[in-house]
Amino acid sequence: MLILASASPRRRELLTQAGFEFIVEPSALDETALPHEAAASYVQRLAVEKAQAVLARPRELREPVLVLAADTVVVVPGLLDHAPEILGKPRDAADASRMLALLSGRTHAVMTGVAAVSSSAPSEIFADVEITQVTMNRIAPQESAAYIASGEPMDKAGAYAIQGYAARWIPRIEGCYFNVVGLPIARVVALLAEAAQASLLRDPLN
Amino acid sequence: MLILASASPRRRELLTQAGFEFIVEPSALDETALPHEAAASYVQRLAVEKAQAVLARPRELREPVLVLAADTVVVVPGLLDHAPEILGKPRDAADASRMLALLSGRTHAVMTGVAAVSSSAPSEIFADVEITQVTMNRIAPQESAAYIASGEPMDKAGAYAIQGYAARWIPRIEGCYFNVVGLPIARVVALLAEAAQASLLRDPLN
Repeated sequence: MLILASASPRRRELLTQAGFEFIVEPSALDETALPHEAAASYVQRLAVEKAQAVLARPRELREPVLVLAADTVVVVPGLLDHAPEILGKPRDAADASRMLALLSGRTHAVMTGVAAVSSSAPSEIFADVEITQVTMNRIAPQESAAYIASGEPMDKAGAYAIQGYAARWIPRIEGCYFNVVGLPIARVVALLAEAAQASLLRDPLN
Repeated sequence: MLILASASPRRRELLTQAGFEFIVEPSALDETALPHEAAASYVQRLAVEKAQAVLARPRELREPVLVLAADTVVVVPGLLDHAPEILGKPRDAADASRMLALLSGRTHAVMTGVAAVSSSAPSEIFADVEITQVTMNRIAPQESAAYIASGEPMDKAGAYAIQGYAARWIPRIEGCYFNVVGLPIARVVALLAEAAQASLLRDPLN
């Protein structure tokens, strides 16, 4: 049995689209970066912790369980010798406005950590990070304000949804598109196949 | 008034997602490539012809009309000194199977020609071609057969839908994602703004 440890409706849709059958059990994890933690380490650590937290829950085991978790952030390159800035979900409209201004007219990276753990071999962790470069056109201040008023940015890392209205500002990406939506499908397919094989589970792909 | 000259439900969805209001009037154009016509010229010529065909229809003009048309093909690089192969929609299951075998484990290009013409200046044509590189993992023959049986490939250029099940085979693209779905949104936004400004129409973006 495959469990998606995420409350995100986008991740649920993407995993369904890729042909998987699964149930959803969000983790309730504190998402705080450690001091000086690099973005790639942060999202991979969080994905692993989310997967482990859900796997550790008591449950009546009828069949082996495979837990998939993910965490996505937007990373804006630092100017001069400044460190890159990691953007999660905006706290409020002002935070969303700040994020969109940071992203306007530049290229940023979207990073998703993915992790899979199984009840047959809980100490074996399968994890990876997917990185996609996203080019964003200039967003005029009045467009940004109207976009924030629409509500779309509020529950999205970096305050935009590429699969929504923000599509019009994104002429180009390099890497996995579905990673920008929140779950790198091709990477997840490979990771789950590996984890299923290693734990002698029935392959969840079939 | 903006008219989308396309029967594709994907194009309709993408244009709606980008915030446009429009009506749909598909053209009924013969989609045959000329001998030795390059893919980029072909899709741009077809987009222009579709837009002009719909603009030329008799209508009771109450307000100026702006017509948007598009045509998408998949281009597989030719091996050795062979010409590249242009893939449109598959004729039947066997044709879809041939196309997926051609695309399996390689990188191909998706090209969309887009064109806009307006009733205020019918001889002025705004047209462009968007090209996206798409990397596809190997598709096992039994996966390809099951995919074709699902029906998803049958009305798609190149016999796959990146926004569908085929997502699992596509780890990477370079360029506009929405171009692969069928309409390069950022490019269309720029083209329509240009056409609307040139023809002194009310900007359809507002």
